[in-house]
Amino acid sequence: MNQTKGSQSLVFEEAPVIISAASVAGSKEAEGPLAKLFDMTNQDDLFGAQTWEEAESNMQKEACVLALGKAHVDPKEVRCLFGGDLLRQGVATSMGVEALQIPMFGLYGACSTSGEALALAAMSTAAGYGKYMLAVTSSHFGSAEKEFRFPLGYASQRPLSAHWTVTGSGAFLVAPNGTHMREGQPEAGGANEGWRHIRIAGVTVGKIVDYGLKDSQNMGACMAPAAMDTIVQNFRDMDRTEADYDRIITGDLGYVGQSILFDLVRGKGYDIRKRHMDCGMVIFDQETQDTHAGGSGCGCAAVTLASFILPKIEKGDWRRVLFVPTGALMSTVSFNEGASVPGIAHGIVLEHF
Amino acid sequence: MNQTKGSQSLVFEEAPVIISAASVAGSKEAEGPLAKLFDMTNQDDLFGAQTWEEAESNMQKEACVLALGKAHVDPKEVRCLFGGDLLRQGVATSMGVEALQIPMFGLYGACSTSGEALALAAMSTAAGYGKYMLAVTSSHFGSAEKEFRFPLGYASQRPLSAHWTVTGSGAFLVAPNGTHMREGQPEAGGANEGWRHIRIAGVTVGKIVDYGLKDSQNMGACMAPAAMDTIVQNFRDMDRTEADYDRIITGDLGYVGQSILFDLVRGKGYDIRKRHMDCGMVIFDQETQDTHAGGSGCGCAAVTLASFILPKIEKGDWRRVLFVPTGALMSTVSFNEGASVPGIAHGIVLEHF
Repeated sequence: MNQTKGSQSLVFEEAPVIISAASVAGSKEAEGPLAKLFDMTNQDDLFGAQTWEEAESNMQKEACVLALGKAHVDPKEVRCLFGGDLLRQGVATSMGVEALQIPMFGLYGACSTSGEALALAAMSTAAGYGKYMLAVTSSHFGSAEKEFRFPLGYASQRPLSAHWTVTGSGAFLVAPNGTHMREGQPEAGGANEGWRHIRIAGVTVGKIVDYGLKDSQNMGACMAPAAMDTIVQNFRDMDRTEADYDRIITGDLGYVGQSILFDLVRGKGYDIRKRHMDCGMVIFDQETQDTHAGGSGCGCAAVTLASFILPKIEKGDWRRVLFVPTGALMSTVSFNEGASVPGIAHGIVLEHF
Repeated sequence: MNQTKGSQSLVFEEAPVIISAASVAGSKEAEGPLAKLFDMTNQDDLFGAQTWEEAESNMQKEACVLALGKAHVDPKEVRCLFGGDLLRQGVATSMGVEALQIPMFGLYGACSTSGEALALAAMSTAAGYGKYMLAVTSSHFGSAEKEFRFPLGYASQRPLSAHWTVTGSGAFLVAPNGTHMREGQPEAGGANEGWRHIRIAGVTVGKIVDYGLKDSQNMGACMAPAAMDTIVQNFRDMDRTEADYDRIITGDLGYVGQSILFDLVRGKGYDIRKRHMDCGMVIFDQETQDTHAGGSGCGCAAVTLASFILPKIEKGDWRRVLFVPTGALMSTVSFNEGASVPGIAHGIVLEHF
């Protein structure tokens, strides 16, 4: 039996496995530290489309097709797709995954959506609801600036606490424990081959955490309390400490949010400084790429997970990772009406086996 | 074991039960045919708030609190909340359910979201992931007009094919088979008491269906193909016909969408005319309320289910119902960029037991 743990966590008896993943990223990401790890990049960030929104949809579709292709799985074999993005009414996902014709659940968890999608894909797989589940999220710098800030043509200045939305999409193919790559597949281990050693051992479902901050240009500060809440809850629910994880990896807190997270977690009696990594701080080079607080967006954690984190778990460099994408829950309307920006974070326990 | 059926459906061996639900609705709904069935209505549609968005959040919170209160369940006992609305970045839900502090999954499925939320709540319950799950959705005429059309102050004219967004929120408390009302509760059966005879026997997860229509003022036509697809898929997956259901109930196809649905379904060899009901056609009186094609919105199907449909199933008037909320997947940006408006519909099999 799968087990509920504490008040917010689940541990799977037969832990589902991630058998493949794919990352599609934009031109700025292709100049960053992870450049060589992405499966696909594009130099004009339009991915063959006429608009940023359609470009983002194309990225999602490509990421899904690549993840499926690596595992030699046909879209018809996928039972459910869990997907989301940052745009209003999730149109990047609706238009992106439409061609795959997979039964789908549309999600919105801001930048935490990759965690939300992986949690639901793992929960559905562990419950026996189908052989293959696909989780996919995306963000695009152009569409996100238009959605949340100003059109790119305005060339608005941004505060140093602001993030740079990652142009990217990550897709993950989840399957039941015991599912291996098909016959004739090359031995796994590389970024462009299927995986055999990564399992989703459990999840910690996040709550909305609101410290009352209202500065949507400082999302790191808005999201740090939610990251702390989910990390500490994971420790308590699973009777663990930071020592039980090789890495504790947040989605896009950035430089500002990371320092707040360290302080908040220390206030609860834990010290995660030596084991913490933030995808938003890894994906860009802050000194040369002028990305201020770091990368952000649904795509930030997703492409970093697909291209950098999962291969390390597959190889056994990291044996257990707590992956915690974080989201800032707001819209331009809620911001203009003076509402605060609460956060949410979902924790995914990834293990080498 | 729970069973996958056909290509898109699940049947639960131990079917979860809906032990309570609540409906909160606005002033126009309180003048309609279902007026006396709602748990709470409000005469100025602001629900104590200063903005339409906050009003919608307050409706969601009240619906959740009422559903929990009827079943004498504390929010702390609820393992997961599945919720969504129509607004950009789902802020009505984020701000609405924040105070409950329940681990949450934010969803977006346009007006199909009540089906999506009930499907995931039932799937999680049937998998043993917790005792109580809460599903909640909402829509608000004022916030939806601002989001998708024009601010109310413009007094824009609307085509006859347009829907009237329902101001309302419905919340549903899902629990494992065998969960009964607590000791000391009155015998169930009325709208203001808990239920003991409603189970979610199975679900059919919808795919995105796109016939290429681009008129967002005629959502009934955009959504009818998705409703057909899910209804016919449910028949095939579960080896059933329309004769196996007392009612087949769509969310908000309205008068235009219904006639298209009948034609499309007939083209597949089924005739659902005698058993079909549409929440958008039931919630308003077309002749006296000037609501054109009918009601719509995440709240339309949700409040009709909570106030009208579930009590009939509880009493045994209807023994088996296929509840199929339908969503039109678009945003003002995708519309302005010339994208089509695909639809999605999720099927929930509700049974009296």
